[in-house]
Amino acid sequence: MRIYLDCFPCFVRQALDAARFATDDEEVHTTVVQSVLRLAARTDTHNPPPVIGQQVHRLIRQITGKEDPYREQKRRSNELALRLYSEMKQDVDEAPNPLEAAVRLAIAGNILDFGVNSSLEFCHAENVIGAALNEEFDSSELSAFVSVINQARDILYLGDNAGEIVFDRLLIEKLPREKVTFVVKGSPVINDATMEDAEIAGLTDLVDVITNGSDGPGTILETCSPQFRERFGRADLIIAKGQANYESLSSVNKPIFFILKAKCPVIARDLDCEIGKMILRRNKYLGTRFIAREKEKADAKL
Amino acid sequence: MRIYLDCFPCFVRQALDAARFATDDEEVHTTVVQSVLRLAARTDTHNPPPVIGQQVHRLIRQITGKEDPYREQKRRSNELALRLYSEMKQDVDEAPNPLEAAVRLAIAGNILDFGVNSSLEFCHAENVIGAALNEEFDSSELSAFVSVINQARDILYLGDNAGEIVFDRLLIEKLPREKVTFVVKGSPVINDATMEDAEIAGLTDLVDVITNGSDGPGTILETCSPQFRERFGRADLIIAKGQANYESLSSVNKPIFFILKAKCPVIARDLDCEIGKMILRRNKYLGTRFIAREKEKADAKL
Repeated sequence: MRIYLDCFPCFVRQALDAARFATDDEEVHTTVVQSVLRLAARTDTHNPPPVIGQQVHRLIRQITGKEDPYREQKRRSNELALRLYSEMKQDVDEAPNPLEAAVRLAIAGNILDFGVNSSLEFCHAENVIGAALNEEFDSSELSAFVSVINQARDILYLGDNAGEIVFDRLLIEKLPREKVTFVVKGSPVINDATMEDAEIAGLTDLVDVITNGSDGPGTILETCSPQFRERFGRADLIIAKGQANYESLSSVNKPIFFILKAKCPVIARDLDCEIGKMILRRNKYLGTRFIAREKEKADAKL
Repeated sequence: MRIYLDCFPCFVRQALDAARFATDDEEVHTTVVQSVLRLAARTDTHNPPPVIGQQVHRLIRQITGKEDPYREQKRRSNELALRLYSEMKQDVDEAPNPLEAAVRLAIAGNILDFGVNSSLEFCHAENVIGAALNEEFDSSELSAFVSVINQARDILYLGDNAGEIVFDRLLIEKLPREKVTFVVKGSPVINDATMEDAEIAGLTDLVDVITNGSDGPGTILETCSPQFRERFGRADLIIAKGQANYESLSSVNKPIFFILKAKCPVIARDLDCEIGKMILRRNKYLGTRFIAREKEKADAKL
């Protein structure tokens, strides 16, 4: 998905937030905002939003001298998510369709956007979880999701934010774990999960966890390590979590399932859905392949 | 009030909105956004926000070739406000305190921000009006407002947006009209009211209406005409309507009453109030003078 012009006010807002997380020095905040405005002015709008996100957050690290401005937010997010984990696990196990409940909770984790929403409280998180379990959800993709997971041999689960990955753990626990490799960022960017967060979330004890070698949000393949790109090419199913992964991979020709909440009008427009919708959706490539395979099966039965 | 860094995302958002009002050409939208990003990057943050607003909207007019991108929105705002007028006038006349009701409705007009909110509907406007008439409102300033109006000989009422000025008319009808001069912009900027709007709103039949000779939002005195500056200097009471007038005049050493809704966190912080509060407030200059005069009166009674 390419950058929409509506993304620019958000880049500036996010840069200011990051600068404030990094330091209390208002002169540094001003330098960050002015530098990001200049950077944004010369951005190629044919790129997906995470490409400029990567440049913006490199610039912020360089100006503030802080390698990981969101470190404290990530720590708090992980902590809060882990406090919620046991109860959520019970919700999943007791649900009529545990896989659907786990998908719903993985989306709840994306809704919360831990760490960015710095005033996030336990009771608010509980409300969001309750709503995600009961909210209307187009689960028509669920049977396709189950089917491609069963057929896949090698599944890459691309993580999103710290804290949120505790919610992903609930879903991964319902998948055939031996097939799943979980992916985190190569180094800190915004509040995205890194290897440290995967360890805290308990994911490293559950499945293989690798890094994508990149400091960009989402999965900007050109800036990922050669090892990761090779691994990505080999996987026969990608589960891509969150908005930035959708933004960076929506046009990539691989079998991908996207799981996210359409939090902003730009994403909602691109997904052709209402703002706020919980989304489980296969990409076009997978859609075409899935339909062809279903047809094959039907033909074989004749 | 100086620019806060939080204003920058809004400038970019507003520039994009204006570009879209002006033309459907997406290449022009891109040029506008990129030019405004560059302009914003070199802005002196010691200026009040309307100063950059003025530069931004000059740039937009220059790039799009449209002298008045909000023309159609302003027309619709005036039309909608005039449809609401009779009922509101009745509300004012039947209120226990008609002046307070008129102030509340003048603020309702500011809440609606006609023309910017392009999807504004009649029933939504009616809801806002009902809420403004009943919402909690710190009316402690009201007696001071009445007192300075009675003492003033020459009142300048600085208007804000098209449509909104129909709501101002309700308040002006409760003021000693012979003292009041209403002020509109010298030429179009955003959806701010110009002489044409004052005529449509029926203000020109009610009081003297003059222009400030400027194409800036609010009242940036340095860019107003010498005639207006002289007039401003002569007035012994200024009633300044809306956020941009507050932003541009909050530090000016003249007797000013501000009337607005604190719509954004930056303004709310500067006013030291919650977001969304309805504000009737004298400035510091007037506050000091008012207290001194009350003391004089009290001393005279002794």
